[in-house]
Amino acid sequence: MKLPHAVRLREVGPRDGFQSLKTVIPTERKLEVIEAVLRAGVSEVEAVSFASTRALPQFWDAPQVMARLPRGRAVLSAMVFNAEGARQALDAGAGRLVTVVSASEAHNRANVKRSIGASLGALEGIFRAAAQEKVPVTGAVAVAFGCPFQGDVPREDVFRIAEAFFSKGAHGLILADTTGMATPDRVEKMVVEFRECFGPVELILHFHNNRGTAMANLLAAMIAGATTFDTALGGLGGCPYVPRAAGNIPTEDAAYMLEAMGVNTGIDLEAVLTAARRLEAIVGEPLPGQVMKSGSADPSPRP
Amino acid sequence: MKLPHAVRLREVGPRDGFQSLKTVIPTERKLEVIEAVLRAGVSEVEAVSFASTRALPQFWDAPQVMARLPRGRAVLSAMVFNAEGARQALDAGAGRLVTVVSASEAHNRANVKRSIGASLGALEGIFRAAAQEKVPVTGAVAVAFGCPFQGDVPREDVFRIAEAFFSKGAHGLILADTTGMATPDRVEKMVVEFRECFGPVELILHFHNNRGTAMANLLAAMIAGATTFDTALGGLGGCPYVPRAAGNIPTEDAAYMLEAMGVNTGIDLEAVLTAARRLEAIVGEPLPGQVMKSGSADPSPRP
Repeated sequence: MKLPHAVRLREVGPRDGFQSLKTVIPTERKLEVIEAVLRAGVSEVEAVSFASTRALPQFWDAPQVMARLPRGRAVLSAMVFNAEGARQALDAGAGRLVTVVSASEAHNRANVKRSIGASLGALEGIFRAAAQEKVPVTGAVAVAFGCPFQGDVPREDVFRIAEAFFSKGAHGLILADTTGMATPDRVEKMVVEFRECFGPVELILHFHNNRGTAMANLLAAMIAGATTFDTALGGLGGCPYVPRAAGNIPTEDAAYMLEAMGVNTGIDLEAVLTAARRLEAIVGEPLPGQVMKSGSADPSPRP
Repeated sequence: MKLPHAVRLREVGPRDGFQSLKTVIPTERKLEVIEAVLRAGVSEVEAVSFASTRALPQFWDAPQVMARLPRGRAVLSAMVFNAEGARQALDAGAGRLVTVVSASEAHNRANVKRSIGASLGALEGIFRAAAQEKVPVTGAVAVAFGCPFQGDVPREDVFRIAEAFFSKGAHGLILADTTGMATPDRVEKMVVEFRECFGPVELILHFHNNRGTAMANLLAAMIAGATTFDTALGGLGGCPYVPRAAGNIPTEDAAYMLEAMGVNTGIDLEAVLTAARRLEAIVGEPLPGQVMKSGSADPSPRP
């Protein structure tokens, strides 16, 4: 098994995870969780979403959260959907913007209440605002591995949106399995074909565990050459517009597995477990993360 | 990714899953669950354990359960620990015996209150009883990928027990990651080295998901050539002598992922989901299985 020397985990729990919760997490608790995961050594946190407060009341305090986070080694990213959100995120000091377009028309309308064409039309303003501040933009293609409304999503629909992002100057691209429909064989094929089509640009895989395949998908992607993954502390997360959607890959479980295989993540396992347990206490219900329940497999002898 | 055409899933929920529960499941409910999983098309069910009723009160009714199960295409297996248990299982009509020895002294003592040497000494009586009835025996090596007490488990300790099983005439061998300490790289290495050492005998991998790695381990094993896996309906399971141990791979999640990749399991997905949901209702608490929560990724269009 050929594994990379290092893998980068993008922490998306504060955005994709908190977004899935019905209750609004207090600002101070959000800051506490994000600061804890930064202390664990993650290199990037998708910290907030600059969406309309009506659509996503969880992020009413996005400007405050972004502005108050400590500036250090890690990149603080924000999800945005239009030029206004981009300007707010940049004003609050976001170090990277992330914007998303679905590869299926039905999901794009469910997710952002507009057509794919309208979402693509909004990219110009987002990229222009980011360029003025010299802030990179990452494009995300939602339902890239299948859509709960449409079913299969043709590869050309996914790559057409990826191409639109790169033509605007995107610094990286996220292929998102928004509702956990990917399987390892298709993940491998996607990574290979993406490389053939787009070359050595930054490719990020974003898996959800709705059908138990997420860690197997991560392994398959990594064997195929992918080295950047979205994960969420505790495995929190899910798309609020898709019924019964399930969580992201738990950051601490991914870090555990990768480090145990000798793949460097830069993450301190005990610190990220502490952060995950604190998040679980704040959320107030059991989260999917396994290593925080079982402990890391410490090889030191016990009685 | 080179995948096999077919994979065999051994259903171990009725033994490894029920064993982990504090409450004794009524006999009729056990029969109902096992019959449901048989209807879904599994080729083998590890249905009961013939342990002492003091050690495992869950299996007080093992003779009745085994005797009353419908005889059909599927193999009905029983776990046994000594010649007396083997005779009881054979009298009740078990079609296969499974017996386990741990690869670490500390875990064997915790699991069966005797030394590895004593467990190996008990094999003779088990294999002799089975041979008289022409019933095959499968050997299982517990903590083959790491021990919660000892830590790392040397390969030679695992293979020494495997060799003991084969020398007695075992028809197959289970390598069990009893407490979820395996990672994909070590699984691949184990499968390759096992083949080098033992040739094309029946090899079965048994993974637990304590640290979120179980499905990735299954994938790694399959890529390395393994084609038989232990799984448990709903992901029920865990070793009762290891604190906070977690479940097996959910049968329905494994069947979903494999079938979606074109690997034939012989299992009817809707029937196994029905069985898993019924099991969840009987157990009365949420089980780890994901596909029964999210549904299979049906590609038919929805509004």
